[in-house]
Amino acid sequence: MNSQSSRSAWSFALHGGAGAISKGAITDEQENAYRDALKSTASLAAAFLANGGSALGAVEMAVRAMEDDILFNAGRGAVFTADGRNDLDAAIMDGATLAAGAVAGVRHTRHPISLARAVMERSEQVMLIGEGAESFARLQKIEEVDSGYFFTERRWKSLKRLLAKMSWPEPPRPLYLRPEPRDHLVHDEGKYGTVGAVALDHNGHVAAATSTGGITGKQFGRVGDSPIIGAGCYASDRTCAVSCTGGGEYFIRMVMAHSIAMRFRYREEPLQNVTDGLVRHELTAIGGRGGVIAIAPDGQVACSFNTEGMYRARVAENSPLIVGLFGGDM
Amino acid sequence: MNSQSSRSAWSFALHGGAGAISKGAITDEQENAYRDALKSTASLAAAFLANGGSALGAVEMAVRAMEDDILFNAGRGAVFTADGRNDLDAAIMDGATLAAGAVAGVRHTRHPISLARAVMERSEQVMLIGEGAESFARLQKIEEVDSGYFFTERRWKSLKRLLAKMSWPEPPRPLYLRPEPRDHLVHDEGKYGTVGAVALDHNGHVAAATSTGGITGKQFGRVGDSPIIGAGCYASDRTCAVSCTGGGEYFIRMVMAHSIAMRFRYREEPLQNVTDGLVRHELTAIGGRGGVIAIAPDGQVACSFNTEGMYRARVAENSPLIVGLFGGDM
Repeated sequence: MNSQSSRSAWSFALHGGAGAISKGAITDEQENAYRDALKSTASLAAAFLANGGSALGAVEMAVRAMEDDILFNAGRGAVFTADGRNDLDAAIMDGATLAAGAVAGVRHTRHPISLARAVMERSEQVMLIGEGAESFARLQKIEEVDSGYFFTERRWKSLKRLLAKMSWPEPPRPLYLRPEPRDHLVHDEGKYGTVGAVALDHNGHVAAATSTGGITGKQFGRVGDSPIIGAGCYASDRTCAVSCTGGGEYFIRMVMAHSIAMRFRYREEPLQNVTDGLVRHELTAIGGRGGVIAIAPDGQVACSFNTEGMYRARVAENSPLIVGLFGGDM
Repeated sequence: MNSQSSRSAWSFALHGGAGAISKGAITDEQENAYRDALKSTASLAAAFLANGGSALGAVEMAVRAMEDDILFNAGRGAVFTADGRNDLDAAIMDGATLAAGAVAGVRHTRHPISLARAVMERSEQVMLIGEGAESFARLQKIEEVDSGYFFTERRWKSLKRLLAKMSWPEPPRPLYLRPEPRDHLVHDEGKYGTVGAVALDHNGHVAAATSTGGITGKQFGRVGDSPIIGAGCYASDRTCAVSCTGGGEYFIRMVMAHSIAMRFRYREEPLQNVTDGLVRHELTAIGGRGGVIAIAPDGQVACSFNTEGMYRARVAENSPLIVGLFGGDM
């Protein structure tokens, strides 16, 4: 028997949020910027997986890249809370071991996904929140930044629009530490900005990662589905890896990522049928909006959304890199 | 056709935590105190359901009663964090609508389960954490208490023992506002204290509620499974209602409550087989410890744990109230 026979063909998919993403809603310059960002991130992960890198490493690397890019609502490009702050949430899960890590409500972590991975690998906990999570970050020497790092003009304007509409008071403008020439390229995709990635590696292991700045104008320490294992992020080699983006409350109530994994396991339908069933039908039926990406150990990749568009890309050992933004793209 | 035919027989179950609960580990006086507490709480919920009360109301009422009782690790009887505080988590879910509410890391709420219900019913969010959740509590006039309210001598001693063992510094002793004559009855059941309830009402709706003080000596804003929809709490009329107690990290990784619901839905096995399979076999296999209670719209009630004991009670329209503490009790 050939020793190659147990080697899986690697595969990778990412998303950069779902929402009001259509030809009419963004300029050509914005479209090109988003396509470039998605392509370069997917290329990075693809090279890593092709060199034998782990699914876990690939999803973390991809999410870190998007956390550094102001185009996406995660890390640096995070939207603002009602009181003018950036509350960041992230989760990561290793399908090989069911190990998981998550953080919610952190305000000074450059890469929340790497903090989530540190929680998974260097603590006995799965989920840490708020200042406690930041104390752990400091002990673990996870890179911290001043809150001004997360300032972007476009996101601030989105907040101001919302506050005016709600007649809520406007908080003081944060210190603007780093002028950003790409600020005008940021597209306000509505409520559903999140980034995420799923991967399958040569060893047949899957992993998922999700990171977000939440929703513009959020209040009261609101946490969406992104850092909730089973809701916005889930991975198991027995089923599949899933990352979600959308109106988080609906995804929590549906336990979306785990619902996809369980239906895939028990019904034995093609993965794309499963994600279509849960997103296009069940999510739509309860009034929720958003999208998911999923990848299974047998190499199936699926992507479903019920919004106008979703920033997304996929690539596999035997398939070219494809980037999608709008409904009919891929 | 008789109009009574669509009326469900009500049913109810609760737990007060799982862990090192055995004849040898507690005194007769403690055993009686726990039996009395479980019985009186179950009786309260039974009377409410028998009078046509909703499953949602029954589970909230039962959890509130246990949050007020120092015997249980939730609300008033919460264990202490490493820095000498009480961080409270809770979640509630309505199986009829899939509406859900959860809070994590609150420190001044007398009844975290009622704050979770307020999040569900009076906000657009599902999960609120930390000080943000407390701001919402104040706006909603949810009862707040001074942090000294949560002081119990027994829980403080448990913290001191742990800090000494870990060689961690001891925080200042909190202000002791309310001397409590039943303090000596508190049994330190180990890491797995939580309270929860599941119910089925006359209208065929199920609901679940879970509340906890977490684990003694917890750090870094750790959040366990209790406030995570799908992990420590889940309810759907299509499947069942579940409340968990145990080593929260394992329950999050297994998405325990939702795993029970999904296996029950897709495999169509008896509910008790499902909970036994997931708790006694799968949870045990990954090294997790704890227990669950579950109730289905058809009246099936299940209870499984892999610890020495679990504080529990059940009662239904056509069944007497049964209280259990140890392994062989019911």
